Amino acid sequence: MKSHPYGEEITLRGHIIDSWVLPRVFDTIMDLGGEFEVSEIRVGRHKDETSFARMHVFAAQDNQLQNIVAALQKYGAELVSEGDVQTRPAPRDGALPDDFYSSTNLPTQVRLNGRWTDVAGTEMDLVIVVDREAGRAVLRPMAQVRAGDAIAVGHAGIRVIPLARARTSDAFSFMMSAVSSEKPKKLAIADIAREMQAVRDQGEKILFVAGPAIVHSGAALHLAALIREGFLHVLFGGNAIAVHDIEAALFGTSLGINLASGMPVEGGHRNHMQAINAVRRAGSIYALVETGELRSGIMYEALRAGIEVVLAGSIRDDGPLPEVITDTALAQQQMREGVQGVGLAIMISTMLHSIATGNLLPAEVKTVIVDINPAVVTKLADRGTFQAVGLVTDAELFLRELVKVLGLAV
Amino acid sequence: MKSHPYGEEITLRGHIIDSWVLPRVFDTIMDLGGEFEVSEIRVGRHKDETSFARMHVFAAQDNQLQNIVAALQKYGAELVSEGDVQTRPAPRDGALPDDFYSSTNLPTQVRLNGRWTDVAGTEMDLVIVVDREAGRAVLRPMAQVRAGDAIAVGHAGIRVIPLARARTSDAFSFMMSAVSSEKPKKLAIADIAREMQAVRDQGEKILFVAGPAIVHSGAALHLAALIREGFLHVLFGGNAIAVHDIEAALFGTSLGINLASGMPVEGGHRNHMQAINAVRRAGSIYALVETGELRSGIMYEALRAGIEVVLAGSIRDDGPLPEVITDTALAQQQMREGVQGVGLAIMISTMLHSIATGNLLPAEVKTVIVDINPAVVTKLADRGTFQAVGLVTDAELFLRELVKVLGLAV
Amino acid sequence: MKSHPYGEEITLRGHIIDSWVLPRVFDTIMDLGGEFEVSEIRVGRHKDETSFARMHVFAAQDNQLQNIVAALQKYGAELVSEGDVQTRPAPRDGALPDDFYSSTNLPTQVRLNGRWTDVAGTEMDLVIVVDREAGRAVLRPMAQVRAGDAIAVGHAGIRVIPLARARTSDAFSFMMSAVSSEKPKKLAIADIAREMQAVRDQGEKILFVAGPAIVHSGAALHLAALIREGFLHVLFGGNAIAVHDIEAALFGTSLGINLASGMPVEGGHRNHMQAINAVRRAGSIYALVETGELRSGIMYEALRAGIEVVLAGSIRDDGPLPEVITDTALAQQQMREGVQGVGLAIMISTMLHSIATGNLLPAEVKTVIVDINPAVVTKLADRGTFQAVGLVTDAELFLRELVKVLGLAV
Amino acid sequence: MKSHPYGEEITLRGHIIDSWVLPRVFDTIMDLGGEFEVSEIRVGRHKDETSFARMHVFAAQDNQLQNIVAALQKYGAELVSEGDVQTRPAPRDGALPDDFYSSTNLPTQVRLNGRWTDVAGTEMDLVIVVDREAGRAVLRPMAQVRAGDAIAVGHAGIRVIPLARARTSDAFSFMMSAVSSEKPKKLAIADIAREMQAVRDQGEKILFVAGPAIVHSGAALHLAALIREGFLHVLFGGNAIAVHDIEAALFGTSLGINLASGMPVEGGHRNHMQAINAVRRAGSIYALVETGELRSGIMYEALRAGIEVVLAGSIRDDGPLPEVITDTALAQQQMREGVQGVGLAIMISTMLHSIATGNLLPAEVKTVIVDINPAVVTKLADRGTFQAVGLVTDAELFLRELVKVLGLAV
Repeated sequence: MKSHPYGEEITLRGHIIDSWVLPRVFDTIMDLGGEFEVSEIRVGRHKDETSFARMHVFAAQDNQLQNIVAALQKYGAELVSEGDVQTRPAPRDGALPDDFYSSTNLPTQVRLNGRWTDVAGTEMDLVIVVDREAGRAVLRPMAQVRAGDAIAVGHAGIRVIPLARARTSDAFSFMMSAVSSEKPKKLAIADIAREMQAVRDQGEKILFVAGPAIVHSGAALHLAALIREGFLHVLFGGNAIAVHDIEAALFGTSLGINLASGMPVEGGHRNHMQAINAVRRAGSIYALVETGELRSGIMYEALRAGIEVVLAGSIRDDGPLPEVITDTALAQQQMREGVQGVGLAIMISTMLHSIATGNLLPAEVKTVIVDINPAVVTKLADRGTFQAVGLVTDAELFLRELVKVLGLAV
Repeated sequence: MKSHPYGEEITLRGHIIDSWVLPRVFDTIMDLGGEFEVSEIRVGRHKDETSFARMHVFAAQDNQLQNIVAALQKYGAELVSEGDVQTRPAPRDGALPDDFYSSTNLPTQVRLNGRWTDVAGTEMDLVIVVDREAGRAVLRPMAQVRAGDAIAVGHAGIRVIPLARARTSDAFSFMMSAVSSEKPKKLAIADIAREMQAVRDQGEKILFVAGPAIVHSGAALHLAALIREGFLHVLFGGNAIAVHDIEAALFGTSLGINLASGMPVEGGHRNHMQAINAVRRAGSIYALVETGELRSGIMYEALRAGIEVVLAGSIRDDGPLPEVITDTALAQQQMREGVQGVGLAIMISTMLHSIATGNLLPAEVKTVIVDINPAVVTKLADRGTFQAVGLVTDAELFLRELVKVLGLAV
Repeated sequence: MKSHPYGEEITLRGHIIDSWVLPRVFDTIMDLGGEFEVSEIRVGRHKDETSFARMHVFAAQDNQLQNIVAALQKYGAELVSEGDVQTRPAPRDGALPDDFYSSTNLPTQVRLNGRWTDVAGTEMDLVIVVDREAGRAVLRPMAQVRAGDAIAVGHAGIRVIPLARARTSDAFSFMMSAVSSEKPKKLAIADIAREMQAVRDQGEKILFVAGPAIVHSGAALHLAALIREGFLHVLFGGNAIAVHDIEAALFGTSLGINLASGMPVEGGHRNHMQAINAVRRAGSIYALVETGELRSGIMYEALRAGIEVVLAGSIRDDGPLPEVITDTALAQQQMREGVQGVGLAIMISTMLHSIATGNLLPAEVKTVIVDINPAVVTKLADRGTFQAVGLVTDAELFLRELVKVLGLAV
Repeated sequence: MKSHPYGEEITLRGHIIDSWVLPRVFDTIMDLGGEFEVSEIRVGRHKDETSFARMHVFAAQDNQLQNIVAALQKYGAELVSEGDVQTRPAPRDGALPDDFYSSTNLPTQVRLNGRWTDVAGTEMDLVIVVDREAGRAVLRPMAQVRAGDAIAVGHAGIRVIPLARARTSDAFSFMMSAVSSEKPKKLAIADIAREMQAVRDQGEKILFVAGPAIVHSGAALHLAALIREGFLHVLFGGNAIAVHDIEAALFGTSLGINLASGMPVEGGHRNHMQAINAVRRAGSIYALVETGELRSGIMYEALRAGIEVVLAGSIRDDGPLPEVITDTALAQQQMREGVQGVGLAIMISTMLHSIATGNLLPAEVKTVIVDINPAVVTKLADRGTFQAVGLVTDAELFLRELVKVLGLAV
């Protein structure tokens, strides 16, 4: 490979053909202008046999080779060359050395003292801070790095564990193909209900990321039922869903629409401001529950059940409610902690919170996005949350059916 | 009005303020560069009193004045000047004299021999053919005009009856405001169900215009139930909905997706071609019902119940099925006949057929469009079907809920 | 009005018919279940004459009457009953008395000591804090109210000045009708360019609210040109547009897409993290300009020109950049200050920031929303920014054409 | 394979790994419940070496095996078993034997008398009619089959030639990834212009499928320029684009919007009916050009240049114009003939015509879809036109830029 003098040897193992790893690897090398030479390949002869490949990757320039290798690591490629993970110290608080390794949302390992070691946490776009003495490595957001921290750099001694493509008749497999508004929703919802049962039985948590359209469309009672019946363990949202939920509980309206008649009520505009004021006057949502003024709805059930709630502020908030975290960095950190232990994430009608949560979720957390706008699903996948499956449908009808399939009283 | 020497005197009567007629008239005159001088105005003092206005309209040029008057007629303006409707002969078959009057979707009258006479039929974009001797006038599509027919021209002696805005708590009023995906659907669907009951009780027909997504999404059984239980009297669709309905009935798939499992079936592609072939080999859908091969679904119920069905062809059709009318002019004419006696139109997931049907419907026919894409509703309104109210939601969940609210067995 | 014993007398004056005020007033009364009795009406006889109406409004209950009156005030209705604005003290910091008056985005006056007095500031959903002794009143967000502040309550002694509908051939009038993706964009863009010139000539500011799609689509250079040439005076955005702008300036990519070739660059993922790191290591964007590392793009031009920039944080931010305001309440306040003196707002491809800014803008600020998704425009109007006109088109092609029409070098 | 007693041996050859053929084959077998046993595999060691695989496929039932084999043929799988293509006679005109082979949009061959023979024509969803004596086979739509025709059935003796994935820096490759409204359009348009030049230089035709939004948005002159300058050889559309084009040429409006001012003209409604009438009175569009009445626009240029035009009717047509083919089966056939020799298809703002044309195009015809609605592109791909690449953008700005890049005078 005269014109491509820079090379590395890599290996791939597992279901590298039927999980599409090998063709992706070939594609990536060629897309990035590299060359390859397969030195060994063993293809599994039937579906239970894994495959193995060993090949040299070549590039015209070293940084091109590094790019290729970085890209291949996403697919589980392992550098044959020996050697531990390399680190360099962070130059100042919140900043990184130049060639820092940026994480994926797949489980990651680093070689420390010759042994492959799990990196604690799985989240995309973080950096690996290595404690060589303790033989440990953790993921950390850039802003939380301290000057002098040993930051993993380059690619040597780092590998990720790609997700094997599910082969069994997976609850979710029917949705994997594409975003479509035309497929039978009823079946999809039944599968989601089954998945919720399974996740709960395994002792994992179910996260809902919820937008205010849930309240506007009259579906707050369904979300409340899910909380009451133990099918919702972590709730992410913004000021708006809490405001409108409380507005609905206190005045029967949402954004000025009477939820029982569907008719606009002039003064509904006032109602949401009055709901905010009622909470602010009491001091907190919690206080409003304590005084007995707030007696139903999502927030009421959430506070009663003591589930984890993160309400993150945004610049379009009125009020906001006292429980809303107006510092976005702090809110992000609480969401990061909130996703621990989550086995299933269901995101309904909220693009901002869905993308933010998607950034925090490991790829193995099953993720469903329900939105009437197909673009939201596409956007999430574009941003790296490739495991997300979309259901293009109506929030209210979705939640009503879900609650019915689960057999819950509302 | 020196610079505006051309003038006409018009009168307006009815709920011209609270039905927004008067401000629209003022707007229109000014938008078109005209001037006005109100000579008399009597405003109803409370909601049950009608109002009256008389005014002169001026323009700088005669054709501008004609344009203004044409526009005002839509709002019920009546020329004070006496005189019968003017006509000129059609120059050849299917063609019109220059200044032909083009109809709106509102009831229209012409002055014949000094008497206001109803024009038979109400449909937009048609022309008025006058039979002066018989004292009759009818609407006719341009293509059906014969050379020599007396075609109404200009504006004199023509008036339309604008719709009074509903004042009572109308089933539909809550939806009138706008297209929104956020309002409570459950209430909207309950209102539609009530309206269906009312329309049926009044002996009027219910028209469904239906797209193939109904079958793809697993909702064919709900539409079939509506037919079986007498809530669907006229059905408009294309080749696709019939093909996929028959595919679903024969093979359990729609576009290759198994409707029971939601999983793609390779060969579903073949299935829809095989469904077409089964019908073509039998000779017709009807023949397939007769032989007992087709035993369920929308087409089965429609043929059994003997309701009116118009399947209109398009250039994307496979096959097509023998019952599909491939001549679009003929299909349009059959749809024109099919809308007679219809009191409520429900259009689901089909833009082309919905707009085509909207063109044929009088403005007083209540029209609901159900589509997951808000643009479809906007487009229909843009094309003149201003009475259409939109429900941005999922076809399957909509139909399921509708059938449930109506209490039908599926 | 036996069944409607509660009444108030109101007056309306101005272009109340051709600005659609009177029919809206009638509608509102009836929609809210009230009755009216017109006691006097004078209709302008031609377009330059204003009209006047006096009427009694009745309701069955007092709070219903208050709701009706509150709704009518939006249209400029003035209570005939004498009397100053009523106030009650705020019960605690950040909370309000029960029947507080919530503002619209129209200019507002209160009657203080018998004289109508302008309320400082115009912004929706705020409250009026009255300083009776000083004879002054100001709008304030709920969160900034202090215990004991005199908050305007009820409706007496409060009126708003509705916008007269533009009658002349307004640059914007052609877009007023509706959101449409089908009308000629070229004409719309030429009108916007003319409006920009006019606003600048009048010494008012032009605000751009900008989303990252501007950079992704290769349009950063056009926005940079607008800043350089003095057509952009205030810039609102988030972390993402700044990050990708700097990524593009430093590496030629945006979200990993090479902006010169359009091809994805593996490692583009790394690029945006590296851009963030470059800034954080330098300490600020400003520092990166100072060191000569950042030499082009939107942020570079903005910092060089010293225009007002507000970068508001959100929970989906990576990094974030040091200049990003992570406290959303603080960011909102800086945006509130930033809109002072703005005569034209152009919002491109960013729903969150557009709605947030829409909430802050007085109704008389001309507002254009450019987005490829028609739903964004609808949503802004739904939230009360009714003056917003939408252009459903591509951000890059819009900005390129705008810069070309303005005759700017890029 | 005890539980899977039915088996066939297949071979695959070519770029079966980097063109993703092999993993798709494995996927398909498993998705359809089959099993496989690889007996031989040779993987190309670098990008220029092709690969080869031989394997047995097993299924539990014979029709399942047939489904699997049918699915694998799409990827170029060839049955090892010897034997000619099997045929059975069509049972009646327009109908097929049960197990007819339904074509893909890839080049197809049948084995006749032991020799692989090209099947004439490439189009999806057709059937193969075999003339064994002449040693020929042709594709034919179901409706054109005559009783007794020898229709290919089953899978033996049939193979398709899959498209090799382009490896070189293809003009289109940058768009292949996904539908995105965020990528640089300017680059995409430049690439399309280059492709147009190349296709024209190779003597292939360029097809435009055009919707009326082109005229509404003021872009008719750009399309006209493309015809005049020889960059548009075949034009597909409907009644609407021709009507509005002629309306614009005669009256300067489109759907009642003045294209020079962007302002609605009351009477524009009349204008489109008058345009139709002008044509119908003259007898044809051609006659209107002959008389000198129609002197500009798309139809004018198309008739002058003598390019191939197919205007297909639909049920929403007004008029229609005499040149419009109201029989959809006939229109489809003319479109089928029109796509012969086409090397590039550009579809703008028309879902119905785009899908209809997509059905007719061989997969190797490069296809670009320009629409502001991303769903249109997705839909086309869902319907099997997988080669289509989408540009989510504005029709007018797209055409203006295209004409500018090509250096044409408008």
